Amino acid sequence: MRQKKLYGIFTPNMVPLDDRGRINERELRRIVDWLVNCGINGLYPNGSTGEFTRFSFEERKEIVRIVTEQVHGRAFVLAGAAEANVKLTLEAAAYYHSLGADAVAIVAPFYYKISQEGVYAYFAEIARESPIDLTLYNIPQFANDIANDTILRLAGEFPRIVGIKDSSRDLPRFLNMMHDVASVRPDFIYLSGCEEMLLPALLMGADGGTIATSGVIPEVFVKLYHLALAGQLEEARAIQYKVLDLIKLIVFGADFPEAVRQAVGLRGFQMGAGRQPLSPTQKFNLEEVARTIQCTLSEFGCVDEPAGGCAPSPVSRQSVERIVQEVIRGLRDGRS
Amino acid sequence: MRQKKLYGIFTPNMVPLDDRGRINERELRRIVDWLVNCGINGLYPNGSTGEFTRFSFEERKEIVRIVTEQVHGRAFVLAGAAEANVKLTLEAAAYYHSLGADAVAIVAPFYYKISQEGVYAYFAEIARESPIDLTLYNIPQFANDIANDTILRLAGEFPRIVGIKDSSRDLPRFLNMMHDVASVRPDFIYLSGCEEMLLPALLMGADGGTIATSGVIPEVFVKLYHLALAGQLEEARAIQYKVLDLIKLIVFGADFPEAVRQAVGLRGFQMGAGRQPLSPTQKFNLEEVARTIQCTLSEFGCVDEPAGGCAPSPVSRQSVERIVQEVIRGLRDGRS
Amino acid sequence: MRQKKLYGIFTPNMVPLDDRGRINERELRRIVDWLVNCGINGLYPNGSTGEFTRFSFEERKEIVRIVTEQVHGRAFVLAGAAEANVKLTLEAAAYYHSLGADAVAIVAPFYYKISQEGVYAYFAEIARESPIDLTLYNIPQFANDIANDTILRLAGEFPRIVGIKDSSRDLPRFLNMMHDVASVRPDFIYLSGCEEMLLPALLMGADGGTIATSGVIPEVFVKLYHLALAGQLEEARAIQYKVLDLIKLIVFGADFPEAVRQAVGLRGFQMGAGRQPLSPTQKFNLEEVARTIQCTLSEFGCVDEPAGGCAPSPVSRQSVERIVQEVIRGLRDGRS
Amino acid sequence: MRQKKLYGIFTPNMVPLDDRGRINERELRRIVDWLVNCGINGLYPNGSTGEFTRFSFEERKEIVRIVTEQVHGRAFVLAGAAEANVKLTLEAAAYYHSLGADAVAIVAPFYYKISQEGVYAYFAEIARESPIDLTLYNIPQFANDIANDTILRLAGEFPRIVGIKDSSRDLPRFLNMMHDVASVRPDFIYLSGCEEMLLPALLMGADGGTIATSGVIPEVFVKLYHLALAGQLEEARAIQYKVLDLIKLIVFGADFPEAVRQAVGLRGFQMGAGRQPLSPTQKFNLEEVARTIQCTLSEFGCVDEPAGGCAPSPVSRQSVERIVQEVIRGLRDGRS
Repeated sequence: MRQKKLYGIFTPNMVPLDDRGRINERELRRIVDWLVNCGINGLYPNGSTGEFTRFSFEERKEIVRIVTEQVHGRAFVLAGAAEANVKLTLEAAAYYHSLGADAVAIVAPFYYKISQEGVYAYFAEIARESPIDLTLYNIPQFANDIANDTILRLAGEFPRIVGIKDSSRDLPRFLNMMHDVASVRPDFIYLSGCEEMLLPALLMGADGGTIATSGVIPEVFVKLYHLALAGQLEEARAIQYKVLDLIKLIVFGADFPEAVRQAVGLRGFQMGAGRQPLSPTQKFNLEEVARTIQCTLSEFGCVDEPAGGCAPSPVSRQSVERIVQEVIRGLRDGRS
Repeated sequence: MRQKKLYGIFTPNMVPLDDRGRINERELRRIVDWLVNCGINGLYPNGSTGEFTRFSFEERKEIVRIVTEQVHGRAFVLAGAAEANVKLTLEAAAYYHSLGADAVAIVAPFYYKISQEGVYAYFAEIARESPIDLTLYNIPQFANDIANDTILRLAGEFPRIVGIKDSSRDLPRFLNMMHDVASVRPDFIYLSGCEEMLLPALLMGADGGTIATSGVIPEVFVKLYHLALAGQLEEARAIQYKVLDLIKLIVFGADFPEAVRQAVGLRGFQMGAGRQPLSPTQKFNLEEVARTIQCTLSEFGCVDEPAGGCAPSPVSRQSVERIVQEVIRGLRDGRS
Repeated sequence: MRQKKLYGIFTPNMVPLDDRGRINERELRRIVDWLVNCGINGLYPNGSTGEFTRFSFEERKEIVRIVTEQVHGRAFVLAGAAEANVKLTLEAAAYYHSLGADAVAIVAPFYYKISQEGVYAYFAEIARESPIDLTLYNIPQFANDIANDTILRLAGEFPRIVGIKDSSRDLPRFLNMMHDVASVRPDFIYLSGCEEMLLPALLMGADGGTIATSGVIPEVFVKLYHLALAGQLEEARAIQYKVLDLIKLIVFGADFPEAVRQAVGLRGFQMGAGRQPLSPTQKFNLEEVARTIQCTLSEFGCVDEPAGGCAPSPVSRQSVERIVQEVIRGLRDGRS
Repeated sequence: MRQKKLYGIFTPNMVPLDDRGRINERELRRIVDWLVNCGINGLYPNGSTGEFTRFSFEERKEIVRIVTEQVHGRAFVLAGAAEANVKLTLEAAAYYHSLGADAVAIVAPFYYKISQEGVYAYFAEIARESPIDLTLYNIPQFANDIANDTILRLAGEFPRIVGIKDSSRDLPRFLNMMHDVASVRPDFIYLSGCEEMLLPALLMGADGGTIATSGVIPEVFVKLYHLALAGQLEEARAIQYKVLDLIKLIVFGADFPEAVRQAVGLRGFQMGAGRQPLSPTQKFNLEEVARTIQCTLSEFGCVDEPAGGCAPSPVSRQSVERIVQEVIRGLRDGRS
């Protein structure tokens, strides 16, 4: 059944930084080893979780070099290769090919809003020249959308385009896409980037997923994937529901991917501070989120509870708001 | 396993009109009989497919009366009861209760954008006074969104609110909602209004769906539902994929729900003209869509092919565009 | 210069309700008189500020009857006439014509999303049959958008359509529209529904505005209008900036139009409670907003300061948040 | 009156490329000279029109070097300095300072969606370290929004932040912003990036604009600016309306900024092909747009009519659509 080129759980790994903000190579290699040992099927350096836009061209190349070396054939490497323009993208793709990456992933152009004709033209030009297989990377929250019609057109015309990593979070659309592309490209690879619905995507025929949270609990997602393959729906469903709370914290608990950084750190890695500055308020909130993540991870048996324990907070957010309103009312009445 | 109050496939039926634009009662009763005989679990009059906003208060009451009478206990009746204000909504709810409807469905306020506090207050006031069970109806495309936190709050406080019909088309959100509400209300009913992903929703624990396309091919959706319940994933998946093309035509082929009207008409009912005026261009396009729907329905064995047959069109849309561009170029060059 | 049929400041009046939630006719007549005496050019009953969707068909007719009678030719009456379908809309239009209204305003269909062809077809059918002049009412926040191309098409084909009330809040678009329509319909009337930019719209050629805040400070907007006409840019600009704070409170300070209701009440009218239920939190916030509105109105010399005075709040929202964070931190640390 | 540091019309210049896709320095210098000679108040290299994201870090530095050298003090230079992270942004800012630029413009972070706390933290860190004055650059279509509250906070805390270039196209918001910031920073500079409403913005107190179309018809925008300053409203308004058609073509006629490139080329500069690939359909459409731009420019007396003349097209788009429908209908009927 598994005859496609890429499949399974891909981790879009984060990049640990040292105290001067530089890539921490030693720690990155430790992360790669850990993920591979946990059974992850592939690494996906320079993804959105990997903050590719916050590194320089040279750094992005360095990251893929380290990851590919360290993986050393024990898992797939799908390397993010989007650069400022087609020429630089092709240069990166050629380099990743020379390093032994299995394929590159290219996000649609971002910043400018461009038409689907432009999206098509962009991928067509890259596909024509690329020395290495490529997957489309659709993440309409951050970059130009790749419409289903455009995917169908590109899949039909360019064998170099071997699959798609879809982070649109839109299952109806994902199903329509798989349905339409199947007729022109039976070998096309579908990876879901929406971790909350990994199981439904797999059940409907997806080949795997690129899962930010798999960088935090790789063992759990590897198990979910194998249960789904084995048709053990009941157990798989229990895991899918169990990870929802963690996903909510990790993906939406802070400006993405700050909470992922905290969570990976909790698994025993020195992640360093991110390159996106944080305000004092953000730092305070992140501390809270990290604490809650630690509690959730402790339920998975992955880490210990935090020092203060995980008893439910004595004050809910709502009760705080009520207190605040009363305080304000009191202050106001005191004014008269 | 089936201990919930409502479950299965609900058809949000359309309302046939006579040549003077009035409700065609005889035809409406024929539609109800047909759907019930096809095994549909419930009828959902005054839904979005039923164009509730285009009828008067009196007409909406008439529609529920006819449907409830004709169903005569052979299927659930979930009656749309949203009116211009809470007082009228409660009046409608009381009337539907007296007719023997199983529950009412209430869409969130529309037109004005209101806060979640306002959405909460609206449903809370209705739930406090309603003589009949009610389901929330979430369709953020058309009305104010009902956020998951608000659903959780309402489900926890009001036993009268027995479930939700979710048409948000957002599976991650739907899963989070089922996960969160389960802890406070194990009896809560989840109906998906997104027909492209009915199967994944059922596999993840939904109780059923309200499916516009089930008004056109009820037999197919009833079968899909039973296959899902029986755990026959392979067959169920094949049907879910098979209906995607029809859904695309019926839900998105024209201004909703004009193409549904065409499709129901193809099953042998006199639907009449809708109340929303159509331009000549719209009428022409609708004819085309109806023809394609007929071809798709003939693949299901439901109807005959149209007179002209269903061979692929000799001109694709793209080739037409190319011809047009050449024509324009010719005309332009001729100008000089 | 003023040869157009409608011009100046139109007040989309709210409808006061009695303690049983019914239209308070006596108070409504008092409001109309007050507005006319303040120099308002026109009344606009059944607008969005007037909460037309929350009344029944019969009530909407009653509202226009009362307003038209009470205005008694002393100002324009532009009556909102959108109903559930074209037939009812035409019935309303005919009735408002018989009452002596100057024109009716028709909002684009709402709830369902429809194509521009559908928007065109809707207004075309009404324009063909209407016994009274009509203005398009564009408010894409709440209803289907009326695209500039559609406005141009309708203005070119139907003399019955005499103008537009544009609440899109989009000046570039408004200017393009005036520019394009001018060539086919020199008599077309442009009313801006965006009060923050009434002056710029007038300076660029608009004929007037429908201004929710003019229901609160009619004297100020009448003055702004006359200064703009007289070319007294400096003074007009000072007023436009001065009203911004009040607009922010009134239009965005609560779920629209709850804060308008509070503000009109502060001018001495018994407005009653609205028909949209409010949660305890909403009621508390509305009290705060009303207090701030009163302080702002006192700066205009329109009302007295509230009992407690208008000194700046001793605690800012930010400082409250800081306090809350410290409280939470304290509670959390205390847990261990 | 003109005591602010920056004011007037700024041209966000495009970068001409040679036939190998490299920066065409000679032509770029010619463009700068032409703009300065036309009376433009400032150059804005590395803006959105200048396609800054499609160049490398080294190229962006090169572009500012060339522009600053060539301007040689004859106009302001406001240099776009946003880079992949704060460290690189500060490096660019220091370099532009050393070249003699007047200030740098920093767009909010893009790709990732970040909270307003994050936007604040980002600009705060840059403002603390920057050796040169900076302006915020708000363009929510492409990058994270900078909310008015955040602008107010930053303006109040950091004297290094001297102004804002606002391309939000939202006048109500722009007016609120000027109103709020005025109280804490009377020296703050407001440049509008929305060319359709440059005049209204100036009349309401803006200091100038960054205008893509001023790279095509600098003489016209310089005149509009001086008329507005001189209070000649009638003449200024005529120009503002006259440029609307050109703006529509140049800004929205193709994927931005492809039509700007065509238009600048029509003024006599070798622009070369852009770095964003274009499909055959896009190239065909662009040819059409360029032709229409040329016709419009000929009305301004800036260029000659195109070879084929500028008579109105013998076929409108609508009539083409009708023809196409008839062709399809004929083909379809022929199938039977």
